[in-house]
Amino acid sequence: MPITVVGLDGDDTLWHNETRFILTQEELRELLHRHVPEADVDAQLARVEMKNLAVYGYGVKAFTLSMLETAIQLTAGRIPATDLEVILGWGRRMLMEPTELLDGVEPALRELSERYDLLLITKGDLFDQEGKLARSGLADLFLGVEVVSEKNAGAYRGILARRGIKADEFVMVGNSLRSDILPVLELGARAVHVPYHVTWHHEHVPEESLPREGWYRLESIAAIGEFLGSIN
Amino acid sequence: MPITVVGLDGDDTLWHNETRFILTQEELRELLHRHVPEADVDAQLARVEMKNLAVYGYGVKAFTLSMLETAIQLTAGRIPATDLEVILGWGRRMLMEPTELLDGVEPALRELSERYDLLLITKGDLFDQEGKLARSGLADLFLGVEVVSEKNAGAYRGILARRGIKADEFVMVGNSLRSDILPVLELGARAVHVPYHVTWHHEHVPEESLPREGWYRLESIAAIGEFLGSIN
Repeated sequence: MPITVVGLDGDDTLWHNETRFILTQEELRELLHRHVPEADVDAQLARVEMKNLAVYGYGVKAFTLSMLETAIQLTAGRIPATDLEVILGWGRRMLMEPTELLDGVEPALRELSERYDLLLITKGDLFDQEGKLARSGLADLFLGVEVVSEKNAGAYRGILARRGIKADEFVMVGNSLRSDILPVLELGARAVHVPYHVTWHHEHVPEESLPREGWYRLESIAAIGEFLGSIN
Repeated sequence: MPITVVGLDGDDTLWHNETRFILTQEELRELLHRHVPEADVDAQLARVEMKNLAVYGYGVKAFTLSMLETAIQLTAGRIPATDLEVILGWGRRMLMEPTELLDGVEPALRELSERYDLLLITKGDLFDQEGKLARSGLADLFLGVEVVSEKNAGAYRGILARRGIKADEFVMVGNSLRSDILPVLELGARAVHVPYHVTWHHEHVPEESLPREGWYRLESIAAIGEFLGSIN
C-alpha cells in the first residue's frame, strides 16, 4: 500500500525543544548552587519530574512546577520567594519563546504537503503545542493536529481509526524511538527516526528493543520527501 | 434533521469542578492573610490569572502557577518558601482528587448513550481532563473525547468537520453560555444550557447577547434524555 498520510512529531523533530529545557535547567543549577553548592540539582529534578509525571503530565508548566518543588526541597525551604519568582519567569519565558524550526524543515514540509496528508502528532501540553505550531508558520501545511497525553500504541490506534487511515498507508516521522517509532511499529505502520542531538532521558529506549524491520533512520528531516518517495 | 450526536461538556456539567477551585482559593486567602491581612487576594489572583491566560491556558497547573505568583507579589517576596510548598501541594491535590459526578449524571448518560453518539468536549488541560474522565467511570459511554484549548466556533467547527457531523444533527450540552452555547449556535447547531450553581467570572456572558432561538435550558442533567426526545 502506498503511503498517503505522514504523521510528524513536533518537539525536536520540526522545532527545537529539549535545548530550551536544558538551558533553563542550567540556570536552575546556577541559582540553586548559590544556596546549596553541593546539591545534585539534576538528579533531584529528575526524581521530582518522574514522581510528578503521573499527576502533571508533560510540558513546560509541569516542568516549572517541578523546578519550584526541587528548589524548595534542596534548600530545605530556605530559598527566598524572590528566587522562586525568577523560576516562574523562566517557565513563562519558555512558553512565549518563538518557535525555532530545525534546518530545512519548512521547504521539506511544504514539498511533502503537496504529495501527502500531513498530521502533527505531539504529546504534552495542548495549549503550549498549539501555540508553538501557530508561531511556527507551518500550521497551514497540516491537515490536522493531534495532541495526546502519551504516545503509545493505543493513542496512535485511536488517531488512525478516528481519521479512517489504514496502518499500511501511514508513516510516522519523529526523533523519539520510544514515542514515535516503537508504538507505530506495533500497529504495523512504518516509521522514520530522525535523531535529535539530545534526547530527554525519559525518552531513551535501548535500540535492541526495536524490531529489525519497518523503520528507517534519516540524518535530517530535510531529506524526508526524497526518502519517502524512495520507499513508496 | 433528528439529533444523532450529543456533545457534553465535562467540568460543572458532568462533574464538579469550579467548587474545587473555590475551596482552594479560600485556603489561599487564609494563608496570605496571615502575611498581609489587608490584601485583596481574590482581586489580585483574578488579575494574575487573566494576565497569564494567553501564556498558560486553562487548568489546574495554570491556576497553581498563578496562585504562586499572586502569593509572591502580595507579600512583596516575603512569603517563606515552605508556604509556597503548601500551595504546590494544593495543586497536586486538585489534580488527584476523585471525580465527583453531579447528581443523576451516570444513569442519564447511560441511557443517552443507547440512543445517540456521545462526545465529551472540554477545554483546558489535556492530561487533567483525561484523568478526570478515567476516574469518572464514564469513559466507555463516549464515542470520542475532544479537549480543545478554547471553545469557540472554530473549535466546534473543526470537531464536527473532522468527524463528519452535520450541524443540524448535533446538540451541545453544557453549563457555560460562553463556551457551550454561544459558539454552537453560531454554527447553526442546537444547545442545551444546564446551569451550575457557580460560574467562573471569566465564563460570564450577559444573557441578552444570546439569540432567542436554538437553545434550551434544563434545570438538571438528569432529565437530558427525556428532553432531547421531546425536541427531536
